[in-house]
Amino acid sequence: MSLSPAALIAHKRDGGEHSPDEIRQLIASFASGTLTDYQMTAWLMATYLRGLSDGEMIALTEAMLHSGTVLKRQRGGLPRVDKHSTGGVGDKISLPLAPLVACFDVRVPMIAGRGLGHTGGTLDKLESIPGYNTQLGAREFQKTVVQIGASIIGQTKDIAPVDKRIYALRDVTGTVACRPLIVASILSKKLAEALDGLVLDVKVGRGAFMTEEKSARALAKSLVQVAGGLGTQAVARLTRMDAPLGTTIGNALEVKESLELLQGGGPSDSRELTLTLAEEMLLLAGRMGTRAVARGELDKALKSGVAFEKFREMVSRHGGDVRAVDDPSRLPSTKQRQLIRADKAGFVSAVDSLALAEVALALGAGRRRSTDAVDPAVGIEVHVKLGERIEKEQKLLTLHVRKRDPKLAARALSAVRVSRRRVRVPELLLGRAIRS
Amino acid sequence: MSLSPAALIAHKRDGGEHSPDEIRQLIASFASGTLTDYQMTAWLMATYLRGLSDGEMIALTEAMLHSGTVLKRQRGGLPRVDKHSTGGVGDKISLPLAPLVACFDVRVPMIAGRGLGHTGGTLDKLESIPGYNTQLGAREFQKTVVQIGASIIGQTKDIAPVDKRIYALRDVTGTVACRPLIVASILSKKLAEALDGLVLDVKVGRGAFMTEEKSARALAKSLVQVAGGLGTQAVARLTRMDAPLGTTIGNALEVKESLELLQGGGPSDSRELTLTLAEEMLLLAGRMGTRAVARGELDKALKSGVAFEKFREMVSRHGGDVRAVDDPSRLPSTKQRQLIRADKAGFVSAVDSLALAEVALALGAGRRRSTDAVDPAVGIEVHVKLGERIEKEQKLLTLHVRKRDPKLAARALSAVRVSRRRVRVPELLLGRAIRS
Repeated sequence: MSLSPAALIAHKRDGGEHSPDEIRQLIASFASGTLTDYQMTAWLMATYLRGLSDGEMIALTEAMLHSGTVLKRQRGGLPRVDKHSTGGVGDKISLPLAPLVACFDVRVPMIAGRGLGHTGGTLDKLESIPGYNTQLGAREFQKTVVQIGASIIGQTKDIAPVDKRIYALRDVTGTVACRPLIVASILSKKLAEALDGLVLDVKVGRGAFMTEEKSARALAKSLVQVAGGLGTQAVARLTRMDAPLGTTIGNALEVKESLELLQGGGPSDSRELTLTLAEEMLLLAGRMGTRAVARGELDKALKSGVAFEKFREMVSRHGGDVRAVDDPSRLPSTKQRQLIRADKAGFVSAVDSLALAEVALALGAGRRRSTDAVDPAVGIEVHVKLGERIEKEQKLLTLHVRKRDPKLAARALSAVRVSRRRVRVPELLLGRAIRS
Repeated sequence: MSLSPAALIAHKRDGGEHSPDEIRQLIASFASGTLTDYQMTAWLMATYLRGLSDGEMIALTEAMLHSGTVLKRQRGGLPRVDKHSTGGVGDKISLPLAPLVACFDVRVPMIAGRGLGHTGGTLDKLESIPGYNTQLGAREFQKTVVQIGASIIGQTKDIAPVDKRIYALRDVTGTVACRPLIVASILSKKLAEALDGLVLDVKVGRGAFMTEEKSARALAKSLVQVAGGLGTQAVARLTRMDAPLGTTIGNALEVKESLELLQGGGPSDSRELTLTLAEEMLLLAGRMGTRAVARGELDKALKSGVAFEKFREMVSRHGGDVRAVDDPSRLPSTKQRQLIRADKAGFVSAVDSLALAEVALALGAGRRRSTDAVDPAVGIEVHVKLGERIEKEQKLLTLHVRKRDPKLAARALSAVRVSRRRVRVPELLLGRAIRS
């Protein structure tokens, strides 16, 4: 009773809803090659324009998830919880977050990504620690998670291989910015980690994939609905991404900021986001009764050095040089610095994260193509915060560069906008979504 | 200043209108391979759901037309006019029409198709004349058109090769039934014949590709607009296709009916359609002042034997055995006949062309796949007309079969529906569209 590929496509084309069986057939045929790439892209475009119901998203995510390896949960083991962010500029939260949460008898099996375009990647940041190996096999990864409590590795080719193929097709057919397909892509990979709970950080703003709050909210809602539909409790946080998160952009620089966060310091916005997401993870894991209790315990873990020690253990277990953790001056750095000073006094009205990400990309901190190499040492330190009153000649940014470049310096300067009038600083935390 | 394939696709996805340059780029990139099949199908689906403007259809048709060979017009030569039908059951009109019109100093360079599914193909019909060669090269074809006035050949691989590739993709991605793509497909092939005028027979009804009059009207309108936009005057006729056209379905049987039509006889509906379309062609060619004059001259050409002689010449020039033209009993025929008689008295309320086409297909008269062989001898004679009063046991159909099959006979019988009450017979000619 299976439909032909053309009939499946026509059904979605006409705005019909697929049965779970049809979705399974779509993905199985694509995996086996009886449904071709050119049929998949026609379906993807029909889906872009017609949408998918929650039921269809659930079936699609499940089918994509089961196209590859799904990790096994140990019976009666500790709760497994992870976090996923839709990607922002200066977002290094995964680095302090995973070891912090692992301090509370929670396992954090985090499979992370690399940077592409204006968003950085957790793996690139970790690899700026000399020796850190992000390429553990599934068995070694599971062992590390059990022994240390947290492990951060890169995507393996066995995890949701159909997602990888579909993503490559979406990338060249104008079907990336499609909520149901984004949901299935994110969750088919994350749920392969065999999680009990998942916290989603959905960014909204100029430096985020979603620039509109409405579409970010819809994405957050779909993510928790679909994760829940597949038996994983999920919470989504909507967070602002207009200015960079924290004070650094660039791989080694962000590791340095992470080390400060792990010791209870660091910039207030990245500290607040780390703690908020950690709270959600501990609540999902059933490890804390209330948010206030969680916050207290998390503060203690940071200030006592327990979280820092957990990070140190994780780095060591991954082959990383712990001397660079103990002494960040051992992290890769550039000889050249280029200081950017204010050309007028006033209030900082914008720190354009997208513009700064472009500068960081030009410095070599990121990738334009997935095959590009990244330079761990280069990047940007941001010395001012949105809304802050500044004087002329005050230090705004420090560029960590291989070679001074006046044009790039001018671009960096124009990313920090200064107004005569006081400006309203938007909230970092915009909202929260749970399964309805 | 050229857009990436993904940007082109995204523009149509969002309902934008392509510039002629963008359309040219789309087709040129597809022809050269820098725009892939899986990108084309995403664009096709976006186009299916978003549509194309007249300007886009014109640019698309032109780009597809120029992806291959375009025949040359001799300067100051006779007018070149052709007809295209969207395909119906029992539609053999091209066979009498081309030689008939060629009797009036008009050239009819007709590139025709093969049958697929429930519609027959002009080439298959001609090939039931022993020896008839439908595969002339472009040069030989042009020479035949000049010498005889009419030639009917098959599609060559040099004519609009991009259309062939796009059609193959549409066929398996649910993007066939899309007006703008149908228009570009039909006209990119027809306009390669270097025509001065084109008459389009757009069928509507149960046995047609378009079952709704509204969508058939829209197709007719688009066809004349786009042909006109590319400098070829066109007229479209909307004609009913519920019951089969004429009294025969099947290749040799339809040649036999065509020979009757060429001698002024034949069934009234196929005769009327032949004359109507021939009038339009002569008017487009500027050969007749009025429709009434044209009708009179056409009648004469049929009754005098001039048209028949022209057909005979054309067959001979194509290597066909003219003895089969002079004596149709020499055409392929089956030994077995299966007579279907009415099981009750009443009025014929439906002669279901789609059901009869399915029976003909089962007999071997058509193709399910493009690689199937057809049997020239098998087919169906229809002895009754819509609305006719019949008696029980009256002859309804004669099946020309290789082997008697009671099941097929039952299916054939159920295709002729009989009601107790008198029925209204719909008009054959539904409307006419010219360029606005």
